[in-house]
Amino acid sequence: MSDLNGAHALVRTLVASGVEVCFGNPGTSEMHFVAALDTLPAMRGVLCLHEGVATGAADGYGRMAGRPAAALLHLGPGLANGIANLHNARRAHSPVLAIVGDHATDHQQLDSPLQSDIDALARSVSSWVRRSGSADDLGPDAAAAVAATMGVSRDAPDLDAGDLDAPDRTGTSGSVATLIVPADASWSPGARPADPVPAPVPAAIGADAFRTVAAVLRSGEPAALVLDGAALSEAGLRAADRIARATGTRLFCPTWPARWRRGAGIPAVEPFAYRGEDVVGQLRDVRHLILAGARPPVTSFGYPGRSGALTPPGARVHRMGADIIATLTRLAAIVAPDIAPVPATLARPAMPTGPLTNRTWAEVVGALLPENAIVCDESITAGMGTLPAATAGAPAHDLLGLTGLAIGQGLPLAVGAAIARPERPVICLEADGSAMYTLPALWTQAREHLDITTIILNNRSYAILRAELERVGAATTGGASARMLDLSNPNLDFVALATGMGVPATKATTAEELSTHLAAALATPGPHLIEAVLG
Amino acid sequence: MSDLNGAHALVRTLVASGVEVCFGNPGTSEMHFVAALDTLPAMRGVLCLHEGVATGAADGYGRMAGRPAAALLHLGPGLANGIANLHNARRAHSPVLAIVGDHATDHQQLDSPLQSDIDALARSVSSWVRRSGSADDLGPDAAAAVAATMGVSRDAPDLDAGDLDAPDRTGTSGSVATLIVPADASWSPGARPADPVPAPVPAAIGADAFRTVAAVLRSGEPAALVLDGAALSEAGLRAADRIARATGTRLFCPTWPARWRRGAGIPAVEPFAYRGEDVVGQLRDVRHLILAGARPPVTSFGYPGRSGALTPPGARVHRMGADIIATLTRLAAIVAPDIAPVPATLARPAMPTGPLTNRTWAEVVGALLPENAIVCDESITAGMGTLPAATAGAPAHDLLGLTGLAIGQGLPLAVGAAIARPERPVICLEADGSAMYTLPALWTQAREHLDITTIILNNRSYAILRAELERVGAATTGGASARMLDLSNPNLDFVALATGMGVPATKATTAEELSTHLAAALATPGPHLIEAVLG
Repeated sequence: MSDLNGAHALVRTLVASGVEVCFGNPGTSEMHFVAALDTLPAMRGVLCLHEGVATGAADGYGRMAGRPAAALLHLGPGLANGIANLHNARRAHSPVLAIVGDHATDHQQLDSPLQSDIDALARSVSSWVRRSGSADDLGPDAAAAVAATMGVSRDAPDLDAGDLDAPDRTGTSGSVATLIVPADASWSPGARPADPVPAPVPAAIGADAFRTVAAVLRSGEPAALVLDGAALSEAGLRAADRIARATGTRLFCPTWPARWRRGAGIPAVEPFAYRGEDVVGQLRDVRHLILAGARPPVTSFGYPGRSGALTPPGARVHRMGADIIATLTRLAAIVAPDIAPVPATLARPAMPTGPLTNRTWAEVVGALLPENAIVCDESITAGMGTLPAATAGAPAHDLLGLTGLAIGQGLPLAVGAAIARPERPVICLEADGSAMYTLPALWTQAREHLDITTIILNNRSYAILRAELERVGAATTGGASARMLDLSNPNLDFVALATGMGVPATKATTAEELSTHLAAALATPGPHLIEAVLG
Repeated sequence: MSDLNGAHALVRTLVASGVEVCFGNPGTSEMHFVAALDTLPAMRGVLCLHEGVATGAADGYGRMAGRPAAALLHLGPGLANGIANLHNARRAHSPVLAIVGDHATDHQQLDSPLQSDIDALARSVSSWVRRSGSADDLGPDAAAAVAATMGVSRDAPDLDAGDLDAPDRTGTSGSVATLIVPADASWSPGARPADPVPAPVPAAIGADAFRTVAAVLRSGEPAALVLDGAALSEAGLRAADRIARATGTRLFCPTWPARWRRGAGIPAVEPFAYRGEDVVGQLRDVRHLILAGARPPVTSFGYPGRSGALTPPGARVHRMGADIIATLTRLAAIVAPDIAPVPATLARPAMPTGPLTNRTWAEVVGALLPENAIVCDESITAGMGTLPAATAGAPAHDLLGLTGLAIGQGLPLAVGAAIARPERPVICLEADGSAMYTLPALWTQAREHLDITTIILNNRSYAILRAELERVGAATTGGASARMLDLSNPNLDFVALATGMGVPATKATTAEELSTHLAAALATPGPHLIEAVLG
């Protein structure tokens, strides 16, 4: 009989399977997992002060590393706290492994204070859920769980699982897997680590479907190619750009993709507008909508008297196979054999002056964005009309978007991205209301000395809701309703909040101040926060 | 056809049913509800910057008002963010009404970014879940939902639903009900408010069971009466104390009850210890365990080689009916006709001096606790061995405990308690690690000018986990595991954090400083925070 307990076998299996980071907010049921970290330095434990930070960080890590980190969560309430950012990870097709400790098996019948339905919570957000029955199971279950995170999720029939060995694998195409670990499975002896399980290989596009798409592209009929996942990697964009230039096909991507390689040297693609009526304009006259790793375009919300489906009436929809980069490359070889992609040129905006507005703050970022930055974008209304243009000619960077619209993603995402890619600068663009959801991420940034510059876009309101209130046709007379969307009275002081968590912070009310503070923050390692007060 | 839309009918029905406060973090799907607040000033909208604040506040309101507030939540991720504190509310048998907006019905099929399984999340934590089908349904569904919050929950076969009309109803005995409201049900016209639905009447104890319990009490065999819910009201405690004095029955309550009336003028009861082995000592030789609104005692967690069930081997368990105060009063009339209850006398601890320890901070609180305070206790390890004794002879107060062990309850609970009882001082005793879960509650305290004094017990660690790590037998060598339980490096500065949210704050490192700051805070209306750094 092995002298390893289940928790040791679990952690060793994770390490053998390529999981090297665990973002955790553990509790009593996870103490053996925590103790196992002492003997396995290859697993880096990162303490997060709320589960929403742990799951959001695992998402950011998954998007940038192309393989999962673990998020260690405590029973049902701990899992529930992490669900919003697991939801974002699910929508991003990030590989994320949630490990949820449960009570010991014979304790689960006692209706003790923390008893709840972990399985139901896990199923609501995971493509794969398993409950380990014993210490013996933990090794094999852990290996299967890691493979499941790299599989094509149930939500993404056409996504590419990519090349797991590529050091700079781009485009995420995994899913959320949840392993539920009863405490007695962790503490019981006799467990053995398991060998890694190969991840599923993405399916190539079928021959008929390929011929159909190729024929559509050559037909001259108006077509749009919607890129997401691996199609938004440099390789995907180069192939798509060749196709577009050869055939007149227009290229689009979601408003907020999981990971979008863009900027100087990278072919450009137009994001869908946030408002459905604007997307209708973008897709006007399109007869063929070709989905390359993307979902069909829909509005985020329903509105009275309007359809939320944005596929143009009468247009045919074509879905690519799971192996998107290969498919795009093959298509380009056929329809654009002699056409080269045309990357964006380096063209930063002029440094603006004067008060901070949605335009000027974005231009400051565009003017100063460092080479190969990772931009975690949860600027929402403050950036949706301005950030893409202001950074289109900035040095090449990855933009990570708010995939599931569950707010509170940005600060944790930056934690995970910075740990996955410590050599790259991380910029977090964070709306004020959203920042308040997962603010303790700043403490982890400080503890781990992460090179993250956070800009809080403080417009002192849930600005998107002010717009939506009108768009859904809700008749207001001010007063009570206005108060539910307003974040002033009292004003949040993000400099004080960041300082309280150990992150140096400054405040900017003009473009000049933002420029000065941002340049200084980028020049100094470690986390910094700048509160940009928008006029 | 009525010209009211569904949201107006919903809010009018809530007001007619006695729901006067809505703690909300709304999104697009709830904009018609928000707009309806403009026309119904009888419904107070309270903005919370995270759903965990909204649900925790609704719990605190329910515990102190004895009727529900609404928590307005946005889709599945918003509900998920609020689940941990709904879990605490469920365990407290608080009446809480969660209203969750969903996408418009025809939008739910589109797999839009925020789509998730709201129903599954709601069922995991609610005794009652309904999804309204149309605007017509919203009035009747809202009335049924309010009644459901006042019903006896599925988890509490022996709890008392109490007297809904009593102005100072004590002891909570409701449950969490969740109403899911598609956006089109809110915005469609032709809706009508519904009349209130009577809450279910609690069942009286059966005649046979009553005779059995009475016989047990008169038998002279060693018995323990475990009080919870309404049994911990003054009326329940007076009856129980008479029974105890007449029969030698010992009185106990949970370690952290939902609401416990105690202090000078109130008969005392002994809380169960946190550690199971200590509860075994408390219940030694008990032959009869009589549960008055209480669950059977169990440990919070399982430990290797030990049972988590704490009912003494061989003891018989007797459960009272749902109408607990009536049952206790009838029993007292039979077994203790001539016995008067003996309330605790006023006996504050001497004001301590020197460094702040788990003992001295609690004594400062005991020395200064104002008359009729509401104490929200999430001090956990910092108070579990010291707070009950230090406040046993303080002026009468209500102590609200961490019922479900999902941390992050205290600050929001204080918000709800203060809104339910604006005339009473609220003291929130909050552990550092737990405070970080729902810190934005401070902003709502500031915005609503609530008279809450928060003391952060800052021991710079997850102290309970350090103890549990050892108790579960996890072998550690320090290093990595210690780092996962330590909240220093960097130290959290709660003065800065509170200031950043508009709450005036001070820091104390000695009993003298805590005494000075606490006295000043209690003498000044509005929210205050004191960071007590424990040595």
